[in-house]
Amino acid sequence: MSDQEAPLRNGVEHKIFEVLPFVDDDYGGVIVEMKTPMDTKNFVAALRDSFEQWRLQGKKGVWLNLPLSHVNLVEPAVKEGFRYHHAEPTYLMLVYWIPEAESTIPLNASHRVRVGAVVLNHNKEILVVQEKYGSLCGSGIWKIPTGVVDEGEEIFAAAIREVKEETGIDTEFLEILAFCQTHESFFAKSDLFFVCLLRPTSFDIQKQDLEIEAAQWMRFEDSASQPITHKNDLFKDIHHICSMKMEKSYSGFSKKPITTFFDDKLGYLYLNKQEDMEQPIS
Amino acid sequence: MSDQEAPLRNGVEHKIFEVLPFVDDDYGGVIVEMKTPMDTKNFVAALRDSFEQWRLQGKKGVWLNLPLSHVNLVEPAVKEGFRYHHAEPTYLMLVYWIPEAESTIPLNASHRVRVGAVVLNHNKEILVVQEKYGSLCGSGIWKIPTGVVDEGEEIFAAAIREVKEETGIDTEFLEILAFCQTHESFFAKSDLFFVCLLRPTSFDIQKQDLEIEAAQWMRFEDSASQPITHKNDLFKDIHHICSMKMEKSYSGFSKKPITTFFDDKLGYLYLNKQEDMEQPIS
Repeated sequence: MSDQEAPLRNGVEHKIFEVLPFVDDDYGGVIVEMKTPMDTKNFVAALRDSFEQWRLQGKKGVWLNLPLSHVNLVEPAVKEGFRYHHAEPTYLMLVYWIPEAESTIPLNASHRVRVGAVVLNHNKEILVVQEKYGSLCGSGIWKIPTGVVDEGEEIFAAAIREVKEETGIDTEFLEILAFCQTHESFFAKSDLFFVCLLRPTSFDIQKQDLEIEAAQWMRFEDSASQPITHKNDLFKDIHHICSMKMEKSYSGFSKKPITTFFDDKLGYLYLNKQEDMEQPIS
Repeated sequence: MSDQEAPLRNGVEHKIFEVLPFVDDDYGGVIVEMKTPMDTKNFVAALRDSFEQWRLQGKKGVWLNLPLSHVNLVEPAVKEGFRYHHAEPTYLMLVYWIPEAESTIPLNASHRVRVGAVVLNHNKEILVVQEKYGSLCGSGIWKIPTGVVDEGEEIFAAAIREVKEETGIDTEFLEILAFCQTHESFFAKSDLFFVCLLRPTSFDIQKQDLEIEAAQWMRFEDSASQPITHKNDLFKDIHHICSMKMEKSYSGFSKKPITTFFDDKLGYLYLNKQEDMEQPIS
């Protein structure tokens, strides 16, 4: 039965006030996407009629995408039993689970992803900055450039971008040296911090003014011997990994473009690239 | 000026209808946390008065946390200029940026994090499952157990949990062999998929019924020679890495508990652990 048809109940045609526009999802549910404005009364009536159809059809999850312009429908949707799922600046996604059985609605995005960029030049100097804001501000501590990976952005590309933005230095990505997971870093969200090794292809620093107080090439030994190194595990470990890397006794993960497991999407695999990695499995 | 005092303007005491409860954040902004119910009229009046104070105080970002019970305030907040930031089942977070200068409001969580668990036993068998749902359902393909990392959950713990849930097998975490980043995997969110190597400590499979159609120990060669291996990069690469690992010619990243860079939180660093990694930097 299409959502455009009026269902017959007990042989009596049942008027649908205004059918909510929806598409099926891949998991036995539907996604309602509101395009045109609707008043709350018509919305509730159409929603109830739609639910009657969805229940008959055995639908499971009902996703309701409300653009900011449809904010008037948030309260009636919640009163009809919807719960928040996630939000972005321009829309709010709500969800309703129809079956008696336990919900298999997937969780919201759980992690913020950040990069730290280790940029070492031929003079055994490391590119470091002092920030205008944040917890190290005013501490005199020199740190590697760091930043947040945007939605849809490759990790390696974010590292290159952050170095360019903060210091004006052009770089090439070499490896992910290590990464760190922590929790409750941003409200309840967890944090993944990828330490990337980059090779500089330019050398004149032009620092950005908005967030960066100072930027310089610093002798690696001087960076490693800052007092914080003795107090902070991550700071110490990053320097230790770098010094092993400079002695060619450390392998991080290189990147390799791939198509993915399930849906043939393009992505990047980060792995310890060995010589024989390009050989097919026998 | 505390938020409890009535500000004087032109010497005239100005009545605050009801002050919105807020705390300062670490970035020159405020976080409003609504605890008690409020009608929309009083809310808008209190919000406008509060904004007058915040502007005078040079506040930047205003975070507004509205629990589900305060859904009546979503529409008036948006009409006063707030935008959605993020949402969880029980609350909606909105934000307003006061200054003329460009917003430095941090982005919402951008990534979903998943694990795949490679469990190899002493007989060169790999633990594999067939799922009841998802894109491989009905394909006859045997795959490693996979699942989503919960907010606040360690990656290695998620791998152990998923294996236990899907197959009943107990395991110990050894290494992250590789990881893969893709985009638009879940609405606009990006995806990080960590391939974990685990050592089984039990051997009798008890499969879970809800999501798993079948589970077995499969000869590694048989898993690697499934037809999908020749069509799918990630499937092929995982098997190739495993075969190198079985020949002891591959190093993934081990875990190491640490305190973090900025805020002394506990976390885990994943790195290529070398013998000399425990030595201090000289």
